Amino acid sequence: MKEIEGSITSVQNFKASSVSCGIKKNNKKDIALIYSTKPSIAAGVFTTNKALSPTVQVCRENLLFPVARAVTINSGNANACVGNQGYFDAKKITQLTAHELKISSQEVLIASTGIIGKQLPMDKIEQGIPNLVRELDENGGDDAAEGILTTDTFSKTATVEIDIEGTKIRVGGIAKGAGMIHPNMATMLAFLTTDVVIKKNILQKLLVEATEKSFNMISVDGDTSTNDTVIILANGSAKNKILAENSSSLKVFAEALGYITSKLARLIVRDGEGATKLIEVYVKGTNAQHEAQSIAFAIARSNLVKTAFFGEDPNWGRIVASAGTAGVSFDPNKLDLFFGQEQVVKNGVDCSRGRKMGIKNVLKKRDILLTINLNSGNEEAHVLTCDLSLDYVKINALYSS
Amino acid sequence: MKEIEGSITSVQNFKASSVSCGIKKNNKKDIALIYSTKPSIAAGVFTTNKALSPTVQVCRENLLFPVARAVTINSGNANACVGNQGYFDAKKITQLTAHELKISSQEVLIASTGIIGKQLPMDKIEQGIPNLVRELDENGGDDAAEGILTTDTFSKTATVEIDIEGTKIRVGGIAKGAGMIHPNMATMLAFLTTDVVIKKNILQKLLVEATEKSFNMISVDGDTSTNDTVIILANGSAKNKILAENSSSLKVFAEALGYITSKLARLIVRDGEGATKLIEVYVKGTNAQHEAQSIAFAIARSNLVKTAFFGEDPNWGRIVASAGTAGVSFDPNKLDLFFGQEQVVKNGVDCSRGRKMGIKNVLKKRDILLTINLNSGNEEAHVLTCDLSLDYVKINALYSS
Repeated sequence: MKEIEGSITSVQNFKASSVSCGIKKNNKKDIALIYSTKPSIAAGVFTTNKALSPTVQVCRENLLFPVARAVTINSGNANACVGNQGYFDAKKITQLTAHELKISSQEVLIASTGIIGKQLPMDKIEQGIPNLVRELDENGGDDAAEGILTTDTFSKTATVEIDIEGTKIRVGGIAKGAGMIHPNMATMLAFLTTDVVIKKNILQKLLVEATEKSFNMISVDGDTSTNDTVIILANGSAKNKILAENSSSLKVFAEALGYITSKLARLIVRDGEGATKLIEVYVKGTNAQHEAQSIAFAIARSNLVKTAFFGEDPNWGRIVASAGTAGVSFDPNKLDLFFGQEQVVKNGVDCSRGRKMGIKNVLKKRDILLTINLNSGNEEAHVLTCDLSLDYVKINALYSS
Repeated sequence: MKEIEGSITSVQNFKASSVSCGIKKNNKKDIALIYSTKPSIAAGVFTTNKALSPTVQVCRENLLFPVARAVTINSGNANACVGNQGYFDAKKITQLTAHELKISSQEVLIASTGIIGKQLPMDKIEQGIPNLVRELDENGGDDAAEGILTTDTFSKTATVEIDIEGTKIRVGGIAKGAGMIHPNMATMLAFLTTDVVIKKNILQKLLVEATEKSFNMISVDGDTSTNDTVIILANGSAKNKILAENSSSLKVFAEALGYITSKLARLIVRDGEGATKLIEVYVKGTNAQHEAQSIAFAIARSNLVKTAFFGEDPNWGRIVASAGTAGVSFDPNKLDLFFGQEQVVKNGVDCSRGRKMGIKNVLKKRDILLTINLNSGNEEAHVLTCDLSLDYVKINALYSS
């Protein structure tokens, strides 16, 4: 597997674009399009939030169609909590895009991110879509990566190339942040492209697995949004022999997909609102994988733990206390805890004496590995999170709509 | 039911005291004692945290003994995450107290709050306990209320008097805060006294019920501690006819108990770290009570909602999005939402036009009622929380141990 520069349009026969249609202020790009010049298949994973955006509903419906060609994404407005009008507006966007592209509206997938509770400015979107289609370009991936952002501070892109039985196959991706984003939302969006030849049901299975291990293993502030969406389009342009189930070739492709989703997930946490540090919570030594995961998430969600990391405070008692809230039984007297390579707790008791400086140096870093070993079994889990800073509160509170 | 000034020693035949023994700096009171001059019975409810303090373990064991006479509480050190030594230290405290009071060590209950991961300074505690017993006073309730505090900014006390078949009965209580308290903990402690004559198993049942509706319905930052403890001592001095199960007299007493626990719970939220506002999340119109409760807690735990309240931002989209994360299905198009008496959302759609000033005025208040009606059933839940302020982060991060 080779990582290369680029994103979604580094994959054969994909074009992308982004323009400003006036949803956001100051002529910022606020609508983006991803288009496969050849018929492609698609798979998607969506938010479990019960106050679902109608955009997600329409996207799910169209995903049932065997062919997909395009994804239209608007930023600046989530099309959520707007009553039934939201559904008609989402449908309309697929129709407008399909009309310009001369394809079926069922071949158009869709995503929205931005303020909740306001209707989409459909007049502006209607005027914008023809421009959007006109701007489609085989180098447009970075434009699209920019057009889907809200308060993210940088674009998030990743591309890899793999070789399967002599055929070069690429997977590219773009994403936007999950930082419960200023002013009103939390949306995590990711769009992936690939030229692999694969069956739709297998692609869906792989995307679910890759999402479980990446986007579902990050926590910025524990909230999920009304609009979270991960979509992949596969247009088969690589002309490889179709990937058979349980084959080694499929495994190679799954690894490439996993690499892209994990890299984008990491970039999202890095860009969490106000985040100054990326913290990898590594829980090991449990009897069941779900136990390790529950404990890791309990720690990653704890405001006390996250503020302590912001303050570079070696406050391991908070971490153990958070672990204890996960509903998983463990023996505190067998617990070991490390900041980086520095062991701080051994058999449940502080063992940091004489190494305060070394520990301080770990906590000063921008990337911190926190390891908790419960010394009870062989299962483990990794969860990524960020610290909780003064800027998080400033960004989210001092804004007034 | 009549609310009166006072606390735990406003109840007949209870004494209390608090002294400084040197666990905390600057001669702050750090050990407290509650003592019934007559044999009493006790009931207790404890944290569900799996990294339990051995203090809680010893307290639970002694609660099995039919008689209880005293509660010794230290603040400044949680006696948690210190290995097996913590158990011996907790036992030792019960023995030292019992020796001075000339009672059995099994009659001594115990609680600790403070820093996690450091052994108790037993030499100081050993020297302090004789003073503590010497200082016991029938007006010592306020001293004890002060001695159990950590970073709380005020003492929390409550007392009521009820009349059961012509007999006056009192219930008093003191508590300390749940604000995941500076620097290392989250402990919520409450100690109640009463002179009622009641059976131990019924007292336990009533305490569990009262706790469910009060201390378990507050959320400061979603964390539970290694040491959370609620204890009640009942010494029977009122000489009422023993309260029979399902009697109206029992109901009157249960209401008094519920009043005390609810008042103390409210004071705890009011004093949450950095809190500037008390927010009552009232969810109604669900099909099951647990659904209302899950949604109310999802909202009360959301950092985005809490920061928005801090910023006095009428950001209802975040509230609906948080409600959607509770795992409870509901129709967003039937949802109504109110800030105070001001309706902001009707049938899932913003209806606030023309009333921005009225809404702003509600959000400026120190106490805010947030009502969400899902218009689906007749069940409801109330959860108390506070806002998430810049001071919360400052208190919890900028401290460095």
